[in-house]
Amino acid sequence: MTPVIPGKVREIRLARVPEGLPGRGDFTVAEVPPPVPDAGQVLVRNRHFLVFAALRTLIGGEVEDAPLPPLRPGDPLFGPAVGEVVTAPEGGALRPGDTVLHMAGWREYAVLPPEQCTRLDGALPDPAAHLGQGAVAYGALTRAAEVRAGDTVLVTGAAGAVGSSAGSVARLLGAGRVVGSTGSAWKADRLTAELGYDAVVLRGAGSFAARLAEAAPQGVDVVLDTVGGEQLAAAVQVARHGARFALVGALRGQLSPQGAGGTAPVELDGYRLILKGISLRGYTGADHPGVDAEWSARFGSRLRSGEIPFPSTRIAGLAQAPQAFEDLLAGHHFGTVVVDL
Amino acid sequence: MTPVIPGKVREIRLARVPEGLPGRGDFTVAEVPPPVPDAGQVLVRNRHFLVFAALRTLIGGEVEDAPLPPLRPGDPLFGPAVGEVVTAPEGGALRPGDTVLHMAGWREYAVLPPEQCTRLDGALPDPAAHLGQGAVAYGALTRAAEVRAGDTVLVTGAAGAVGSSAGSVARLLGAGRVVGSTGSAWKADRLTAELGYDAVVLRGAGSFAARLAEAAPQGVDVVLDTVGGEQLAAAVQVARHGARFALVGALRGQLSPQGAGGTAPVELDGYRLILKGISLRGYTGADHPGVDAEWSARFGSRLRSGEIPFPSTRIAGLAQAPQAFEDLLAGHHFGTVVVDL
Repeated sequence: MTPVIPGKVREIRLARVPEGLPGRGDFTVAEVPPPVPDAGQVLVRNRHFLVFAALRTLIGGEVEDAPLPPLRPGDPLFGPAVGEVVTAPEGGALRPGDTVLHMAGWREYAVLPPEQCTRLDGALPDPAAHLGQGAVAYGALTRAAEVRAGDTVLVTGAAGAVGSSAGSVARLLGAGRVVGSTGSAWKADRLTAELGYDAVVLRGAGSFAARLAEAAPQGVDVVLDTVGGEQLAAAVQVARHGARFALVGALRGQLSPQGAGGTAPVELDGYRLILKGISLRGYTGADHPGVDAEWSARFGSRLRSGEIPFPSTRIAGLAQAPQAFEDLLAGHHFGTVVVDL
Repeated sequence: MTPVIPGKVREIRLARVPEGLPGRGDFTVAEVPPPVPDAGQVLVRNRHFLVFAALRTLIGGEVEDAPLPPLRPGDPLFGPAVGEVVTAPEGGALRPGDTVLHMAGWREYAVLPPEQCTRLDGALPDPAAHLGQGAVAYGALTRAAEVRAGDTVLVTGAAGAVGSSAGSVARLLGAGRVVGSTGSAWKADRLTAELGYDAVVLRGAGSFAARLAEAAPQGVDVVLDTVGGEQLAAAVQVARHGARFALVGALRGQLSPQGAGGTAPVELDGYRLILKGISLRGYTGADHPGVDAEWSARFGSRLRSGEIPFPSTRIAGLAQAPQAFEDLLAGHHFGTVVVDL
């Protein structure tokens, strides 16, 4: 049976290099002929894709040491997505109807080589939950921060995609107390009510470091930092001797009106890191390829049962994606931001 | 036989809290009655003591997270020393004539509890070599930086007490290429001629980062940082993916005319640490108590044979110690600075 594909399909493109924070007007919804796979390629109908702040680092100009080249005006955006295979090469491992995870989001249809599609064999009841960042929190806490039973854990940016999962993950790994930071009281309430946080510190006027010290009077053993900048510096101040920091995000830079959004400079005192025996370790999933499988093996059944929540903001329809990105950078969203197609 | 002890002995005291860099005039050589041990204490005749830059952090005012309280005017200085036991408690492990390592330097005679004296059983031909910092370089490279065979290693402050040993230690541990930094051409020459360095970058006018990139065109895998500040930031720039940094010193702050000398602030970009998967780890020997014994067991015979050099500057006589400290902070000395009594 030949699948029915529309004569025109849509994708989100960069319209111009933004000045300051990107807004919906910096993107276009383009109507294009459907992509045509060659004999070795897979055609995927996307169902969900991720809206994520790190995309800003690719659309604001050159960022040194970036893993990918910057996007130019006219380029389609990309990022994590979940879709269904429409057609696949004869004799390969993929079949029409398979659910796959891949990196060609922000479009209705994608053409990819099979090796860039990960088949979701033990698919979760909500396939969009495969866009959740629990595995990143798990990898950062186990590989970079080496969390131990009883540790006090600080998660900066606790309402973000990684942070909203990190409270539950830290609990599963035995943390004694979990403290977060975020920008709004309603987010703080939800984090403590539903998502494993014991206390949440609000950023804003006055000394963040002083509020943090109040929330963690005994100091912190582990820091999972998704923000950088002054929140990271404050975390060093309240860190206990031997504290271990996993650096996983730089929202401070990505959500700032200044600059290209790629950097989160922080002034640290090296002597204090020495005296306190602190370690800071940068973490990305790409550097730890075994983590996803370990996360699924250890906690897949609790993800399927809903015991581990998937905190998300759902956006209906491709055309809403630019607004969703603008709102994400403005701090209006909670958890993993997913566009459903 | 009753040992002969002079009626007056000398010690170095802090005269005043210095403004800016301490100089010889900030110290006094005091003549005092010899200290009298009680029945449970050891009396030691000091033979060698260490002159070290980190002392500045205790004499310039309060430094947050410092392991010791600041010195006040009138207080005797202290630090690592090697001496001979004059009298020891009856029935204890120490005997008159034993050579011991302890922390009551900057004075001719010291009284200590026995548990604060480490007997040097396998004493080196030059007992002052026990003040060498090879064990710190060894611990930092094995514990914090986890050096591997073939690694390119960068040592900042290569002519300092730790750095002047670190080149040889890195070689023993299999480093493929060892690059250092220092402040003078004559130090650079000695480091490359005698002490295991393949190349040495001079700090000074122009871009340190650019010179460093020339000396390590393939980047660096391991950084042993004794300086901090812009040298540490430049090291992050040239670091390879997955690079491991051991932070062991903050000479940048300790040798600066500004401030109390305790800090070496550095502006780092957290996002770059993430993308490059870099780890930074503060290291002190105090946090790794097994390292000294391991260092002696693995390399003691090569230390005794002289195969591992002990680069040092020797100063004759207690009265010269304040000048030696001033000269150390001015960058005039090479290697471990030892006052011989």
